[in-house]
Amino acid sequence: MTTTRILPPTPEAHQSQLLIRSIFEQSLKYEPNREIIYRDLVRHTYLDFNKRVARLAHVLTNHLQIAQGKTVAFLDYDSHRYLEGYFAIPMVGAVLHMINFRLSPDEILYTINHAEDAVIFCHEDFLPILEGMQGKMETVQHIVLLSDSGTTPETSLTLSGEYEDLLLQQPDTYDFPYFSEDSIATTFYTTGTTGLPKGVYFSHRQLVLHTFGLATALGAMDNALKIGSNDVYMPITPMFHVHAWGFPYLATFLGMQQVYPGRYEPPMLLKLVLQEKVTVSHCVPTILQMLVNHPQVKTFDLTNWKVVIGGSALPRGLAMAAMDLGIEIITGYGMSETCPVLSLTYLNRKTMSHLTEEEEADLRVKTGRPIQMVDIKLMNEEGQLLPSDGKSTGEIVVRAPWLTQGYYKDEERSHELWQYGYLHTGDIATIAPDGVITITDRKKDVIKSGGEWISSLLIESLISQHPDVQETAVVAVPDQRWQERPLALIVAKPDTNLTDEDLIRHMEQFSDSGKISHYAVPKQYKFVSEIPKTSVGKIDKKRIKKELEV
Amino acid sequence: MTTTRILPPTPEAHQSQLLIRSIFEQSLKYEPNREIIYRDLVRHTYLDFNKRVARLAHVLTNHLQIAQGKTVAFLDYDSHRYLEGYFAIPMVGAVLHMINFRLSPDEILYTINHAEDAVIFCHEDFLPILEGMQGKMETVQHIVLLSDSGTTPETSLTLSGEYEDLLLQQPDTYDFPYFSEDSIATTFYTTGTTGLPKGVYFSHRQLVLHTFGLATALGAMDNALKIGSNDVYMPITPMFHVHAWGFPYLATFLGMQQVYPGRYEPPMLLKLVLQEKVTVSHCVPTILQMLVNHPQVKTFDLTNWKVVIGGSALPRGLAMAAMDLGIEIITGYGMSETCPVLSLTYLNRKTMSHLTEEEEADLRVKTGRPIQMVDIKLMNEEGQLLPSDGKSTGEIVVRAPWLTQGYYKDEERSHELWQYGYLHTGDIATIAPDGVITITDRKKDVIKSGGEWISSLLIESLISQHPDVQETAVVAVPDQRWQERPLALIVAKPDTNLTDEDLIRHMEQFSDSGKISHYAVPKQYKFVSEIPKTSVGKIDKKRIKKELEV
Repeated sequence: MTTTRILPPTPEAHQSQLLIRSIFEQSLKYEPNREIIYRDLVRHTYLDFNKRVARLAHVLTNHLQIAQGKTVAFLDYDSHRYLEGYFAIPMVGAVLHMINFRLSPDEILYTINHAEDAVIFCHEDFLPILEGMQGKMETVQHIVLLSDSGTTPETSLTLSGEYEDLLLQQPDTYDFPYFSEDSIATTFYTTGTTGLPKGVYFSHRQLVLHTFGLATALGAMDNALKIGSNDVYMPITPMFHVHAWGFPYLATFLGMQQVYPGRYEPPMLLKLVLQEKVTVSHCVPTILQMLVNHPQVKTFDLTNWKVVIGGSALPRGLAMAAMDLGIEIITGYGMSETCPVLSLTYLNRKTMSHLTEEEEADLRVKTGRPIQMVDIKLMNEEGQLLPSDGKSTGEIVVRAPWLTQGYYKDEERSHELWQYGYLHTGDIATIAPDGVITITDRKKDVIKSGGEWISSLLIESLISQHPDVQETAVVAVPDQRWQERPLALIVAKPDTNLTDEDLIRHMEQFSDSGKISHYAVPKQYKFVSEIPKTSVGKIDKKRIKKELEV
Repeated sequence: MTTTRILPPTPEAHQSQLLIRSIFEQSLKYEPNREIIYRDLVRHTYLDFNKRVARLAHVLTNHLQIAQGKTVAFLDYDSHRYLEGYFAIPMVGAVLHMINFRLSPDEILYTINHAEDAVIFCHEDFLPILEGMQGKMETVQHIVLLSDSGTTPETSLTLSGEYEDLLLQQPDTYDFPYFSEDSIATTFYTTGTTGLPKGVYFSHRQLVLHTFGLATALGAMDNALKIGSNDVYMPITPMFHVHAWGFPYLATFLGMQQVYPGRYEPPMLLKLVLQEKVTVSHCVPTILQMLVNHPQVKTFDLTNWKVVIGGSALPRGLAMAAMDLGIEIITGYGMSETCPVLSLTYLNRKTMSHLTEEEEADLRVKTGRPIQMVDIKLMNEEGQLLPSDGKSTGEIVVRAPWLTQGYYKDEERSHELWQYGYLHTGDIATIAPDGVITITDRKKDVIKSGGEWISSLLIESLISQHPDVQETAVVAVPDQRWQERPLALIVAKPDTNLTDEDLIRHMEQFSDSGKISHYAVPKQYKFVSEIPKTSVGKIDKKRIKKELEV
C-alpha cells in the first residue's frame, strides 16, 4: 500500500481557509464606490456596506451576545439588510438561518425551533407571523425589527431594537475572527414530498467554492449568457431560497452594482430593471411569465437583461416569448440540497453557430451541462451507475464540493440522501453523450403504468401545446389494471370550450407520430380554475394528489 | 471560549476533494473537439488528449512502476507531452518535478537528487545534459525519451523507451485514484540570491484554487484583458517555470484551444500566433521585446492578442510599443513561491474611461491589485504591518490559498520565508489607498545610502529614458562614507557616444525636478556590451555584483 506525499507545513505558515470573509474583503478591492440599492428607498456604496457589516457584527456579538456556533435568523424580503446578514452572521462564526416566509405558520415555527434560532431579524410585515407564535418559540431570545418606514409598529412582541438604530450605536470596523473553513455558515429548510421540513446546511468552504464555480461557469465560459463585474445584479428568486442561487455572494465577490427589490411586485421589479439598468437576474418560470405578461412589456427595452431560469422546467413557449423580448435566458439546475447550482445551459455562439433559433430554444429549456467541479451521473434503483447515452433513464446523482452533508438532526433521511455515496436529487433524467441533461420527471412524480414509466413532465409539455390550455399538471392516479395512470389537471384559457375529447385527440397526434407511446396518452382530465403551487412557486403535486384523494 | 459549528458528515456522504482530476474531467464537458497543438508537428483533440493522459498513467504505474508519493520529472520544452505530464503524474498520486533546463548542469543535478526523481522524461535536445551526470543521479531509475523526430539519437544513457512507443502499448482509459487534496502535486526549484536552489511544492488543493482564482480574475472581472473559453492559448513563459503561471491548468479547465510552441524561437512564436489565431499568452518583458523588435512585426495583425506580462518590471516604453501594435497587455505579479499569481493590473474601461493613454500605460506597468482570495500587506523589518497609504514603503507579504508551505527539506529557509505568519516576497513596495501596488525594489537590491533607501528599479527606469541607452542595471556598491552607492551598468545603443557626464546630466534633471533626491543620482557608470541575465531572463544582480567584486 503506497500513499501520496503530504508534507507538514512550516509551523509559522499561514493555513489558508476558505472563508466568507474573503468574498467580503474582495468587494472593496476593485470598485468600492459601486452601489447597493434597495427599491427606491436606500442606496449606498460598498464602502458603506463594509462599515454596516462591521456594525452588524458588533450588534450580534456585543448587543445581542451571540456566541460562535449559534443560529441567527432573517425573516425579510430581498434587501440590503439581508445582504449584510449574509456576511456578518457567518463572519462572526454564527449560522445564518434564512426563514422561508411562504411556509405555513406551523412550518415556520417548526423550522425556528429545529434550527434553534437565538435571534430573528424580522421585517415589519412578518411580525404578525411571530406574534402568533409567542410562547412557542423555544430558543429565541431576541427579535430585531427591520423597518422600511423607520417607525415601530404596534406589536405584542418584545423587540430588542430596530436594525438601523442598533447599527448606529456601534463602531464601523470589526476584527473578524479566523476559524475552520468547515464551520457551518448557513442553514435553511426544504419541504419534501412527505413529512416535516428538512434542514440543509452549508459551510464557509462550500459557499466559497460555489462562488468560484459560478464565477467560472458564468464568467469565464463563452456562453450565450456571460457575466462580468460590470453587470448590475438583481435577484428575483428570494434570498431565503437556497442563497438566492448563490448570486449575492457572487455579485459581492466581483464587486457588481447590486439591486434588492424587497417584496416581489412586477411593476416595481420592471421599474428597477429599467431605472437601475439591471443586466443579470435569476427567477423561476412563474415570475418570468408574470413579467412577460405585463401589459406594457413590449414598450420596455429588455435587451440588456440576462436571466438564469431554474426551480422548475422552463416551458418552451415561455422561453420563446422571453427571447422575442430580447432577454437572454438560460436554464440552471440545482436544489436546496446542492447550494444550489449544478448545471447550466451551454450555448456557445462560436461553436454552435449552425443551430437554428428553434434548436437554440431547445437547448435553453434543457438542464444544461454540469458546471466546473460537478460530477453528475445517472443511477438506477439498485445503486448502479448508468451510461450517458441519451437513452438510459435514471435518477440524477451528484458529487460536488458544495452539497449538504446531510439533513440537520435527521440521520435517517441523511442516509437516504447519500445512499451509495452520491447525493440523490430525486430527478429522473437522460444524459446525452455530449453531456446535456434532460430531466424527464421527479422520481416521485413518474407514472408507472403497466411496467413502463410515463414522464409527467413530458405529458404536461405536450398538453400545454394545445392552444386553449393555459396551464396543466399531470399526476399519477392508482389503477387496478395498470398500477398507475396519468390524470391531467387543466386550466383552460378564458372563453374557450375545451373538452376531454379535444385533449385526447390532441395527444393522440403525438402517439401517432411516435413521440410518446399509446399508453402514455391520458384518458382522464379534470378542469380546474387554478393549479396548486408550493411556497416557491412550483406545482404542488403532493397537494394535488391529496385533494384528489389518490 | 465558544466555537463555530462543525457537523460530522453523514457516513455515506462523499467528501469532495479539490483534485487536479476535476480540472482534467472538466475539459471534456464543453468542447471535446477543440485541439491541442504542438508547433507544426502535432495536433489532436481533447478526446485524444484524454486518452493519452490515461495511457501515460498506465506507463507510469504499470511500465515504470511508479508508486504514489514518488517524484517524476519532465525536462522538455513547452509541449503537448508536458501538458500530459501536468495531469497524469499528479493524477496517479505522484509528484511532477519540472526541471529548469536553463540552470547550470551542476544545479540541475542538485535538483534531480534533492527532489529524488525516480523517472525523467527527457527531450532529445537535453540528453547531453543527463549524459554528463551518469553515475551521479542518486534516485533516477528510468529515463524516457521525448522525441520530435521519432528516432532514437545516439546516447550513452540507458533509455527505458520512447514516449510515443510506450503510450501506444497501453490502454486508453484509466481509473484514477481518489486521495487527499493536500497531496503534493508539483515541485520545482527557484534560484535565490545565495546558496543552492530551493524546492517549492504545491498541493492539488492549491492548484485547483489557483485555477479558480485565475478563472475569476481573468474571466469574470471586466478588465482591459478579459478571457473566455473561446480564447486560444499559447504559453511563452516556460512550462518548467511556476506552472507556466498556471495557464495550462486554466486553459484545460475552460476547454480552450491550446498551442505549445516547443523551443522558443521568435519566428516560430509569431508564426503560431498568426496561424493558430492565438489570443492569449503570457511572457517576461525580454520575450515581448524580442517579438516587438521582429523586423516584420508591423506587417502582422496582433490586435486580437492579449498578453499578461510578469517576471520582472515591464518598462513603460515597451508597454507603449506593444500597445501601438494593438496588443492588449497587463502586468501580473507573483513568484515561484506563490504558484504564482498574486495580483494583476485592473483597468476597467467602463469606470476608468477618464484615463488618458499615458495614464493607462502607467497602470499597465504597475503590479496591479491583489486577485480573489489574495491578501497582500506591507511589513517592516520588525514584522509590523504598514498602512496602504501610497507612502509607506515595506516588504510585500502575502496570505493566499496557493502559497508553498515551505522549502522542501529546508527548515531554516522555510522559517525565514514564513516569518510572522506571512509569506515574505522580498519585494519592496508601496500600496496606494485604491490597492494598486508599486514595487520599488527587491529587498536585496535596494541601495542603502546615508541612511536612506534608493530604489534601483526607479533609477534604472529613469536612466533608460535617455535616448542613447539600450539597457541598464543598477546595483549597490560599498562606500566608506555612505555605506552604499548606486553603480549603473549601461549598454549603449550602437553608434552612440554616451559618457558618464551625459548620464549624470540626464539624471540631474530628475533630482532638480524633485522626482528623486540628489543623493540618488549615480556617479558611477560602467559601459558594457551585455547585462547578465538569470535562467528565466531576469537581470542577474547577484552575478553583476560578483563580477564587479563588490
